[in-house]
Amino acid sequence: MDSLRKDNFRVHSEPVPGLPRWKRGDDSAFVVEPRKHKLNILAIDGSPPGQVEGDVVVIRSTTELQAKNVRGKIVVTAQKWTGYGPTVKFRRIATEAAKYGASAVLVKSVTPFSLYNVHTGAGARGSPIPAACITTEEADMIARWSDRGKRVVIRLNITSSPSDDLVLSRNVVFEIPGSTLPQEIVLISAHIDSWDIGQGALDDGGGLAAVRAAMLAIQRLAQVNPAFRPKRTIRAVFWTAEEQGTLGARYYCANHLNTDERFVFASESDQGAFRPRNFNSILRYQGDEKHKRKIEEIVDILNGNGVPLRVVNSRDQVDVACFANAGIPSVNYEPDRGKDYYFNFHHSEADYVSIFEEDDISYTAGIFAVLAHNIANMDDW
Amino acid sequence: MDSLRKDNFRVHSEPVPGLPRWKRGDDSAFVVEPRKHKLNILAIDGSPPGQVEGDVVVIRSTTELQAKNVRGKIVVTAQKWTGYGPTVKFRRIATEAAKYGASAVLVKSVTPFSLYNVHTGAGARGSPIPAACITTEEADMIARWSDRGKRVVIRLNITSSPSDDLVLSRNVVFEIPGSTLPQEIVLISAHIDSWDIGQGALDDGGGLAAVRAAMLAIQRLAQVNPAFRPKRTIRAVFWTAEEQGTLGARYYCANHLNTDERFVFASESDQGAFRPRNFNSILRYQGDEKHKRKIEEIVDILNGNGVPLRVVNSRDQVDVACFANAGIPSVNYEPDRGKDYYFNFHHSEADYVSIFEEDDISYTAGIFAVLAHNIANMDDW
Repeated sequence: MDSLRKDNFRVHSEPVPGLPRWKRGDDSAFVVEPRKHKLNILAIDGSPPGQVEGDVVVIRSTTELQAKNVRGKIVVTAQKWTGYGPTVKFRRIATEAAKYGASAVLVKSVTPFSLYNVHTGAGARGSPIPAACITTEEADMIARWSDRGKRVVIRLNITSSPSDDLVLSRNVVFEIPGSTLPQEIVLISAHIDSWDIGQGALDDGGGLAAVRAAMLAIQRLAQVNPAFRPKRTIRAVFWTAEEQGTLGARYYCANHLNTDERFVFASESDQGAFRPRNFNSILRYQGDEKHKRKIEEIVDILNGNGVPLRVVNSRDQVDVACFANAGIPSVNYEPDRGKDYYFNFHHSEADYVSIFEEDDISYTAGIFAVLAHNIANMDDW
Repeated sequence: MDSLRKDNFRVHSEPVPGLPRWKRGDDSAFVVEPRKHKLNILAIDGSPPGQVEGDVVVIRSTTELQAKNVRGKIVVTAQKWTGYGPTVKFRRIATEAAKYGASAVLVKSVTPFSLYNVHTGAGARGSPIPAACITTEEADMIARWSDRGKRVVIRLNITSSPSDDLVLSRNVVFEIPGSTLPQEIVLISAHIDSWDIGQGALDDGGGLAAVRAAMLAIQRLAQVNPAFRPKRTIRAVFWTAEEQGTLGARYYCANHLNTDERFVFASESDQGAFRPRNFNSILRYQGDEKHKRKIEEIVDILNGNGVPLRVVNSRDQVDVACFANAGIPSVNYEPDRGKDYYFNFHHSEADYVSIFEEDDISYTAGIFAVLAHNIANMDDW
């Protein structure tokens, strides 16, 4: 916030109470049979502590939880990567596995490519059994053993633990006040929380940096010539607790939607602030057709300046879903590398700032700046 | 060896004495300044133990060892990947850094792409100062700090240790005796040792599997019809101590080259037993032009069967360099993925068998089987 103040933004934070708390412990898992082998694991958010030793049942689809007898067993998942949406459901399997009597779950990391880096994330909140992710290499090794009829026994010690105490966090809000329509808000956003491993550079430090750079560009433009000052207010919000279920954004939306403020646009940046390299780069759009066409007009300008981008209807707005569902035109930026490539690093120790090339942040910032500035000034928005 | 005997091969092992010994300890390194940060490290083969705390000097080229004052400092390398050959020299920098007074070296992992996986390898044997590799992410982070003028302090504790005791290992040898020219040997080989981390699947389990599968294919062909039995002896050797400097192969070569046996061809497989996908897949060839043309004739057959491959002059024969340097026509198989892709996994925890697709081993085996069988039967070889 100090850094934003130094850049002459009006900055404040808004409390978000009642967030769940979970502390990562010193967790470990070993294969005991068919041979001793230390597994590379990361507990899944919300996992309760527990010491479990037992036989393994491997599943490759969620229906196998029912089809195979998992009672008293440690479930190891060995699903194929078929995109994040369909694959991440395995990371959320703990509570259901517990219903079928499983004693623990070890989930193959949700990634299309691995260099022995284990991924974590949300998925075990409220689960009565311990849940952790393992590397794809090890999940597949265990699956091969199991396919060959070998008995696999794992010893798991999870000391990670949720707490009944709820905690307070904060959204960070700063804005460029509109000159003639200050009560109309053009919202651009990213989330300030990240997982405890790695640097959180890609998820979502890059998003933050891009939103910040977009705001700076617009502010400096207005300083060069007051005529460039946006008519509507452009507000940036750095959400808290996205990883726990977009909790910061939901709270903000619930408290701001029915006030004097009128949100006219909302954007999300959570898929890696990569430079768009081709037309697989999209703005996931949720809203009416009239505003979609207007956004397409702005995207045409970007295309004309060598930025490949398309507008695609989608109801996947993540942090700004609450705004989108209230009928506010919303976009979620997904560069071409925001698909499979992004998930190589996502929620793992590999989420380091070295993922980005220098142009990545500035191009992403350019997209948000052009969108926000045009929308903030459009007479017939 | 039991498994090879079950497949009806004549198998024996041959002692290789005098190998150096080095034991990986429980090594650790922390950044102390500008902020506390645990580094992901792997000691480099031969590193002596040592506890060192000190200021960091970052180098990006080997000449900077001289240009910068490294006396009493911990040298961190932040070289760019420019291919394995030119980049791996940084992993061998410890002894020279010690000459300029450095107290330790931390080498950026030698890889074109990282997911926070640290790589190890040979390079510090005889070094008076501790030497370890760190992730590319962390080397670059330290370099960024240093570029910004921040003081970087690292605390290193290496307990890995070389021993004065020399150890005995063994090469594994099996063959298909030639029907009419048994004293002429067509040698196909891979190495049986690997680093202690990961599975050693790519370096060089895949090579072993491909050589073994090639030998099985030739043997079964001979069983189907004795006319297919090779005229010359086809011998497979699984070398020990390649990683320590092709020591097993050198010893074998020194002891076998000047005997009644006459080696007529030698091959190496150490760049990943990947299926060739395009004509960037090569046989690095060392030898005379006459035999090169004959190998090209065999490669033509492979090309005609949909296996893209070229023959390229090269003096990079690794394990079979001793044979090649003695004038024996030699090839070293390098598939297209044996270049940059291979080094994503090489000498790291990520070297798991999941790297290979099923066809990879069988295509690689096919290449060696076709080469060995044709050469073993060629009248005018």
